[in-house]
Amino acid sequence: MKLASYAAEHWIEPPGDAAEIRSAIDGSTVALASSRDVDFAAVSKHARKVGGPTLRKLTFHQRADLLKRLAQYLTEHKASLYDLSFHTGATKRDAQIDIDGGIATLFAYSSFGRRELPNDRILIDGAPVSLSKGGSFIGRHVLTSLNGIAVHVNAYNFPCWGMLEKLAPALLAGVPCIVKPATQTAYLTHAMFRLIVAAGILPEGAVQLICGNLGDLLDHVTGQDVVSFTGSIGTSRLLRDHPAVSVNATRFVAERDSLNAAVLGPDAQPGTPEFDLFVKEVAREMTVKAGQKCTAVRRILVPDALVEATGQALSEKLARVVVGDPRADGVTMGPLVSLRQRLDVLERLAELAPETERVFGNPEAISPVGADAAKGGYLGPVLLRATRPDQAAAIHSVEAFGPAATIIGYGGLDHAVELARRGEGSLVASIYTYDVEVAAELAFGLAPYHGRLHLVDRDSAGESTGHGSPMPGLVHGGPGRAGGGEELGGVRGLGAYMQRTALQGSPNLLARLTGAWSKGAAQVTANEHPFRRAFDVIDLGETLQTASRTITLEDIEHFAGFTGDNFYAHMDEAAAKANPFFPGRVAHGYLILSFAAGLFVEPAPGPVLANYGLDSLRFLKPVSPGDSISVRLTVKQKAPRNAQYGEVRWDVEVTNQNAETVATYELLTLNALTEKAA
Amino acid sequence: MKLASYAAEHWIEPPGDAAEIRSAIDGSTVALASSRDVDFAAVSKHARKVGGPTLRKLTFHQRADLLKRLAQYLTEHKASLYDLSFHTGATKRDAQIDIDGGIATLFAYSSFGRRELPNDRILIDGAPVSLSKGGSFIGRHVLTSLNGIAVHVNAYNFPCWGMLEKLAPALLAGVPCIVKPATQTAYLTHAMFRLIVAAGILPEGAVQLICGNLGDLLDHVTGQDVVSFTGSIGTSRLLRDHPAVSVNATRFVAERDSLNAAVLGPDAQPGTPEFDLFVKEVAREMTVKAGQKCTAVRRILVPDALVEATGQALSEKLARVVVGDPRADGVTMGPLVSLRQRLDVLERLAELAPETERVFGNPEAISPVGADAAKGGYLGPVLLRATRPDQAAAIHSVEAFGPAATIIGYGGLDHAVELARRGEGSLVASIYTYDVEVAAELAFGLAPYHGRLHLVDRDSAGESTGHGSPMPGLVHGGPGRAGGGEELGGVRGLGAYMQRTALQGSPNLLARLTGAWSKGAAQVTANEHPFRRAFDVIDLGETLQTASRTITLEDIEHFAGFTGDNFYAHMDEAAAKANPFFPGRVAHGYLILSFAAGLFVEPAPGPVLANYGLDSLRFLKPVSPGDSISVRLTVKQKAPRNAQYGEVRWDVEVTNQNAETVATYELLTLNALTEKAA
Repeated sequence: MKLASYAAEHWIEPPGDAAEIRSAIDGSTVALASSRDVDFAAVSKHARKVGGPTLRKLTFHQRADLLKRLAQYLTEHKASLYDLSFHTGATKRDAQIDIDGGIATLFAYSSFGRRELPNDRILIDGAPVSLSKGGSFIGRHVLTSLNGIAVHVNAYNFPCWGMLEKLAPALLAGVPCIVKPATQTAYLTHAMFRLIVAAGILPEGAVQLICGNLGDLLDHVTGQDVVSFTGSIGTSRLLRDHPAVSVNATRFVAERDSLNAAVLGPDAQPGTPEFDLFVKEVAREMTVKAGQKCTAVRRILVPDALVEATGQALSEKLARVVVGDPRADGVTMGPLVSLRQRLDVLERLAELAPETERVFGNPEAISPVGADAAKGGYLGPVLLRATRPDQAAAIHSVEAFGPAATIIGYGGLDHAVELARRGEGSLVASIYTYDVEVAAELAFGLAPYHGRLHLVDRDSAGESTGHGSPMPGLVHGGPGRAGGGEELGGVRGLGAYMQRTALQGSPNLLARLTGAWSKGAAQVTANEHPFRRAFDVIDLGETLQTASRTITLEDIEHFAGFTGDNFYAHMDEAAAKANPFFPGRVAHGYLILSFAAGLFVEPAPGPVLANYGLDSLRFLKPVSPGDSISVRLTVKQKAPRNAQYGEVRWDVEVTNQNAETVATYELLTLNALTEKAA
Repeated sequence: MKLASYAAEHWIEPPGDAAEIRSAIDGSTVALASSRDVDFAAVSKHARKVGGPTLRKLTFHQRADLLKRLAQYLTEHKASLYDLSFHTGATKRDAQIDIDGGIATLFAYSSFGRRELPNDRILIDGAPVSLSKGGSFIGRHVLTSLNGIAVHVNAYNFPCWGMLEKLAPALLAGVPCIVKPATQTAYLTHAMFRLIVAAGILPEGAVQLICGNLGDLLDHVTGQDVVSFTGSIGTSRLLRDHPAVSVNATRFVAERDSLNAAVLGPDAQPGTPEFDLFVKEVAREMTVKAGQKCTAVRRILVPDALVEATGQALSEKLARVVVGDPRADGVTMGPLVSLRQRLDVLERLAELAPETERVFGNPEAISPVGADAAKGGYLGPVLLRATRPDQAAAIHSVEAFGPAATIIGYGGLDHAVELARRGEGSLVASIYTYDVEVAAELAFGLAPYHGRLHLVDRDSAGESTGHGSPMPGLVHGGPGRAGGGEELGGVRGLGAYMQRTALQGSPNLLARLTGAWSKGAAQVTANEHPFRRAFDVIDLGETLQTASRTITLEDIEHFAGFTGDNFYAHMDEAAAKANPFFPGRVAHGYLILSFAAGLFVEPAPGPVLANYGLDSLRFLKPVSPGDSISVRLTVKQKAPRNAQYGEVRWDVEVTNQNAETVATYELLTLNALTEKAA
């Protein structure tokens, strides 16, 4: 199979002398790849001139729809990918993590886009910022799509998930992507990418694919671009320190080496559910993908007294691992991706040897099921134990990227934290305890050094998503050695692809620019009641100022009797006076709300279909018997929902007879469109 | 004056052969500086071992209090700084921007800390993330203080503001700082820093000062640290690409070169307020701090037809500028910071010469008032005009860091956007127009390339804070050439100094760790009504499940009559049925709220002092006549306020007789402490 690159809507075949990519299973040639004939300047230009402008014209909801349709298409056509996946060394289960997990990430981002983002092209970030006494000059932050490209340089271990977890947030943010898979497993990425192209769902220029090396692509990056990398620290630094990236302050997101820890709490003695969960999860993390996961457990931190027991329990689990051709019956762990990777792991193990002793496994003495040990990257799981954890350096810094991990004994919890931190920043750590105090001490000791902490106990283990699985809604990445990058995290993941800008100006102008009215912007009184104005017709700032209504002591007593809310502040003058906030008996907050509605509601059927909620209600001043209230109701924001109706957010202010603000809130209604618009 | 560095609570004097720093006014020696005798490893260690742990023990409110007290102390003692400030070339007005503006930033961050952050050490970021069907396993993000140090490398132009705008968010985030001012004006930073030390308000190790060069400090940075730089692109790259910064993925924040634009809208013809505002602001931006501001206007974009008129109007303004010794009467612009800086600006002007013609000024032909032109950095303002804007390169890339700017004519708005973008990323652009369409087209064209957009018109100009002024509540920084950094922005500014971590676990455990109950976490029924439990006693998860109450048609009609809310969905069966959301007549939302309160309120005086608000109310299912509702009320969060009371946030769920959720909201009460605790 020749892996063509997809550049400017054309497939560019590799030249005849392209490098061979060999199967992890038996070393046979699976594919040929080279990007030598790709014009990288043209790739960059195509994304900038065609892909970017097209994507940016779409709203978040429209982009979310593309992701959903793409995910559906891939789901329907994914079957063809599994056979190819075996050649990466993946078992069927590994392949599901990669292929189905990747598609699930697309679905998740589609859902984030529909549910959490507006049907618009910009995002408002935070509330208006006061910048002047009179209020005629304010600030407001918005996020807009970068006018650039995303270069995604992916690792070999998750050829599908690695591509899709970067594509999903970038495309939702409106930024076109250039995907550069690791060559070793590029054939699987390529196969999925062929499906993406065949689907014909994404607009032209939204995605391109480089099979082979990056050529001079980075020479073309600008300050509007993002380079997002997953892989080794060495390659990461080459990209990060590339002159064009440095001089242009191109955004650089990295997910690099990580010596993730699993920490067993002192309470989790053998026999407890947490001990069993720990052993099961660590053994699993060591062997899924043959340990070739950025999130795999490398350091197994247990109380000194439990080192022995942990070693035994883990050894029993690992003894059941069946290494071999992932297509063969009964095989639970496939080969490493290549003979070279096998060699690399053996070299790393040699570096760890002086600081460790072997508890389980002789990696080279294996007989892979259905395979020739000499032809594929077969390696048995290896469990080490640190001999002198405090003096050791390699166990905290050398990552054997295979089925290997080291048990490290700790004294007290502070010692556990100190040892874990010696990894100098990791993607994830997991904590196994049923003691809240232990969990708190470990979690807050580890948090600054980790992007994710996975807390496991008997209450949650049944539904836990596992130590090793990044989730679309949670951030993925870690500080320091792990690269300092942050991906995913729901809509947070869009931040890498958008620019935050502070807008300063008059409330009126900012309301027009952002589609969000705020106090100080024009209040327009329409000729008719705003409840009579359809969603598509009503405008920001349209305002109703109601008549006033006096609240009597009888009203308060009546309301108390009717609702059953006889709180003393409403019913007992002396007790109310003794309260630090009230001058005497006052009206119920809900009475104020209810009377306010009575003042502004238009009773007859009209565009307002329902009041479906209320936000940020604050009672600012007590209302005493005899006070009169009136209400100002102003259209604050409009959010289209569907062809029948949209959501209108109203700014509501209740004032008293002295024009003092009594209460403020935001009211939410669903408003019908005019029949013509619908 | 010898500028000592402040390292590990000791003042380290410079050696005898330290470099001389000369006055901008007359070249006389103002100070001597060298950091040669500073032990940078010890500086780093002191911050890590003493400053960091102490700061991290404080809550945000306690840190905010430190900032406030420090700001008050500096306000009381700032008078001594003004005389020294003149030697930097600053006029009195320039000094106020620097000194008072810096102190104002401290005050602002103190206020953000008190008003927008909890009295706690961690920040919760966002809502719980669903990770399982059964809800026993969820995710939640928190931000915790980095366990590292902040190295602040500042520019020469704002010796006080530059220090304080970086210190304020870092200290509020709990991270100790090492301040490294630009040597040229370090004497003023040093003088203010002496006040900070003399104040004795900040804990040991919270701040240290390096007068001279950075030595080998960067060799000591880790993945928990932040290097924040303001200055030239060249120095920025040296720091960014430093091996320790690169290998450790040390956070790097840069604010670099920026060719900021001011854009005049086509509607802003001479005679309009916007034209006058534009001319006034551009002239001011060119001459404040003698144009040595990162945010100064360098490119003046005007419609082709207005190039002439703009040149004339600006020339008239600039002709009134009086250059001289800033201490002399009538002087409105002081010298550049040094003779070298003057030379640098002249060299840059020479680079601009082939692409421009001079509209105003002969920089070298000036007679500074009260000063010897040969001895100080005196330079007159220079206004250029681009001869062929589209072919030019230097006008968009060469920053003459002095009182110089270039008028650039544009055709249509898209051309204006294209020209502005050729700056490849700027800190700020300003837009002068009274036409919303023009503002929108320019603003969204420029937003991805800018950290701030300053929109000026007649409505807001009177209170505008100006093109050149970063505000504590708004982000400061810009993409691309401007460095890609982001500072300030209110509490956003703390993000650079904190790690975001996704916690995964059972709702109960996460509730304990974060202090925020969420659905699925334990609900505890106390022996007494939760309204009888004092703030310090009541615990997360304490729950009241009320009796139920049936809502009758009479209730609905009675409520309608009483409140005046006769909305048809409550009053007219046929009309209600025709509504897409209702099965027929339904209860008012406010009736449900009011009856719910009647069900849960405990009438007698007790710890609950007031219901002061309500958040996130959603009506999820209509309540028909005959339905019965009951309420679950659970303590969700507690926020201490003062010695008398605190805020309790309750999770409220109203259900019907079929256990379907009718409404959810968060209720806010103020609860007294027990007398013992208070």
